[in-house]
Amino acid sequence: MSIEFRPEIKDLVPYKPGKPIADVKREYGLTEVIKLASNENPLGSSPKAKEAIRGALDNLNIYPDGNSTDLRAALAKYLQVDASKVLPSSGSDEMVDMISKTFINHGDDVIMADVTFPRYLTTAKMMGANPVIIPLKDFCYDLEGMKAAITDKTKMIWLCNPNNPTGTMFTEGALIEFLDAIPSNIVVVYDEAYNEYVTRDDYPKDSMKLLDKYPNIIIMRTFSKVYGLAALRVGYTIASEEIINYINRIRGPFNVNALAQVAAMAALEDTDFLKKSYRVNKEGKEYLYNAFKEMGIKFAPSEANHIFLDATKDSQLVFTELQRRGMIIRPMYGTYTRVSIGTMEQNKKFIELFKEVLAL
Amino acid sequence: MSIEFRPEIKDLVPYKPGKPIADVKREYGLTEVIKLASNENPLGSSPKAKEAIRGALDNLNIYPDGNSTDLRAALAKYLQVDASKVLPSSGSDEMVDMISKTFINHGDDVIMADVTFPRYLTTAKMMGANPVIIPLKDFCYDLEGMKAAITDKTKMIWLCNPNNPTGTMFTEGALIEFLDAIPSNIVVVYDEAYNEYVTRDDYPKDSMKLLDKYPNIIIMRTFSKVYGLAALRVGYTIASEEIINYINRIRGPFNVNALAQVAAMAALEDTDFLKKSYRVNKEGKEYLYNAFKEMGIKFAPSEANHIFLDATKDSQLVFTELQRRGMIIRPMYGTYTRVSIGTMEQNKKFIELFKEVLAL
Repeated sequence: MSIEFRPEIKDLVPYKPGKPIADVKREYGLTEVIKLASNENPLGSSPKAKEAIRGALDNLNIYPDGNSTDLRAALAKYLQVDASKVLPSSGSDEMVDMISKTFINHGDDVIMADVTFPRYLTTAKMMGANPVIIPLKDFCYDLEGMKAAITDKTKMIWLCNPNNPTGTMFTEGALIEFLDAIPSNIVVVYDEAYNEYVTRDDYPKDSMKLLDKYPNIIIMRTFSKVYGLAALRVGYTIASEEIINYINRIRGPFNVNALAQVAAMAALEDTDFLKKSYRVNKEGKEYLYNAFKEMGIKFAPSEANHIFLDATKDSQLVFTELQRRGMIIRPMYGTYTRVSIGTMEQNKKFIELFKEVLAL
Repeated sequence: MSIEFRPEIKDLVPYKPGKPIADVKREYGLTEVIKLASNENPLGSSPKAKEAIRGALDNLNIYPDGNSTDLRAALAKYLQVDASKVLPSSGSDEMVDMISKTFINHGDDVIMADVTFPRYLTTAKMMGANPVIIPLKDFCYDLEGMKAAITDKTKMIWLCNPNNPTGTMFTEGALIEFLDAIPSNIVVVYDEAYNEYVTRDDYPKDSMKLLDKYPNIIIMRTFSKVYGLAALRVGYTIASEEIINYINRIRGPFNVNALAQVAAMAALEDTDFLKKSYRVNKEGKEYLYNAFKEMGIKFAPSEANHIFLDATKDSQLVFTELQRRGMIIRPMYGTYTRVSIGTMEQNKKFIELFKEVLAL
């Protein structure tokens, strides 16, 4: 007799991350490699966050504050909500897992888009859900299609706004219309990992005001993007106190590491760094838009820090040819490719090399 | 209609961590507080680990290597096993959760001790298991009782050796006899978080040799104890390549933060720090044993960095009275209390204050 794994996880595939920069350098004999593959902040992170970590190095032996008390309080103040509605997590990855474990029963329908953040699907399957996949329409969320897919088996709907990997957004009006239309027993997880980069006025900028009216909403945010703390794994979620209390029942007791807690608090206060990150991203986006237009490259309009484009050649080929030239981007499917917006210098280098690869 | 939570998690209770030292100082107006509550390394952590973190602060914006490639390789070399059998995690907490999600189906029997590490029970319930609790015998694992509890519904057995919170151990002979006796389709999770502190010769010091003979075993270790890196959240697991591959299917893509990865590699190499930590713990244990014997306090023989004792007074009362005197320990149940072994100075202070509290 041999051990048996859960049938639910048998068709799941381990995540295949891109190669670390050091490996790419070694493999291709390169001295410089630019990574525009993971939607990381090209400006690095706030100096205040580094300083906060330096100040915490003498207590590495001490368990983190399991309740992230100070970070929760700082976030509550920043968001103007009660701390009981805020819960930090080890990146959004951990929160997606915890939300799935809190709500999804075997056989529940869970509605999500394709393409979108892949952890929604993995964790839904892990819990034995029946994933209901609604294709994007013109690279945008098809909220009407999602609404039409609701049955009495629907437990949860995942929304990502702006969406990863397409960078597209839906408006505040569309979101409210959607929330008004769906039954209040369906959990709506609203992931706004990229919200700080949005430039359009009709985006739901103040999602906190949704909390009172829609007790079935869970709002997710992260310190991995504009705050530049992806290495540390820290995000946060805002929902009703009842939902937060339930998530806490299955949360690991020390889920957010101590350095992430102090760094996140420091990063939250560094508005100069955030403003600069926003500005560099906006300028980079405009530069890339113009370059793509000149090249005749089609792309989805982005409100995030990455652009989803039709590279016109097989995206794996484009990826490989760019990689050997020291530029890492993210191949998606067919000829579709995602590139993160970098510094102006990085963007220019990308366009230069992209042209080279397209001319092959 | 309101949202519904999974019935499996309804009777779970959020973990209630002890107060942070800063809060205790504030509440009682104390300038110095000693925490012997969480089995942390009283010597801090390796200076090499801090140095490694300082060297990584310019890359906080970059996602961690999702496969922890270098840490896996370092651990594989240290353990003399193939890297495909090693998997780092965000502390043992995350690994307990991942193991439960990999194996436990609704209605499975999961056998564990009482009292032991509480996450075994929480995650088993979370997955809808039927927990089969085998009481300790003289504060030690009752392996015979566990064996007798096996039915054809048994999916998994959790072993913690030395056990937390009792500090007691079972021998290599007992472990092998147990593994030989149980059906090979039952997953045995063998948690040796405290193994580096063991002083007895009959402990299974080289558990790696069990891997080939028992493909159903999963061995868990941590950097939170003797390595002094509890703040960072990093542990590791050794099992067959097949088991590791399955756990990888549900693992978050960036589960171990980047600073934890570099610090763990540095800590692994600092054998001087490890030897000193072992010696200070052994000396502290002997000091506390002698003090307890003089005081007529009964305790369980410990092979870990903490001692489980009968405080002879209600443990909550002992805890509170010690806390207001600037000493935090862990109340368990009844008159049973757990104290972590500190530096000699901390141990002496504990005995002084413990005597004071017992004389109240």
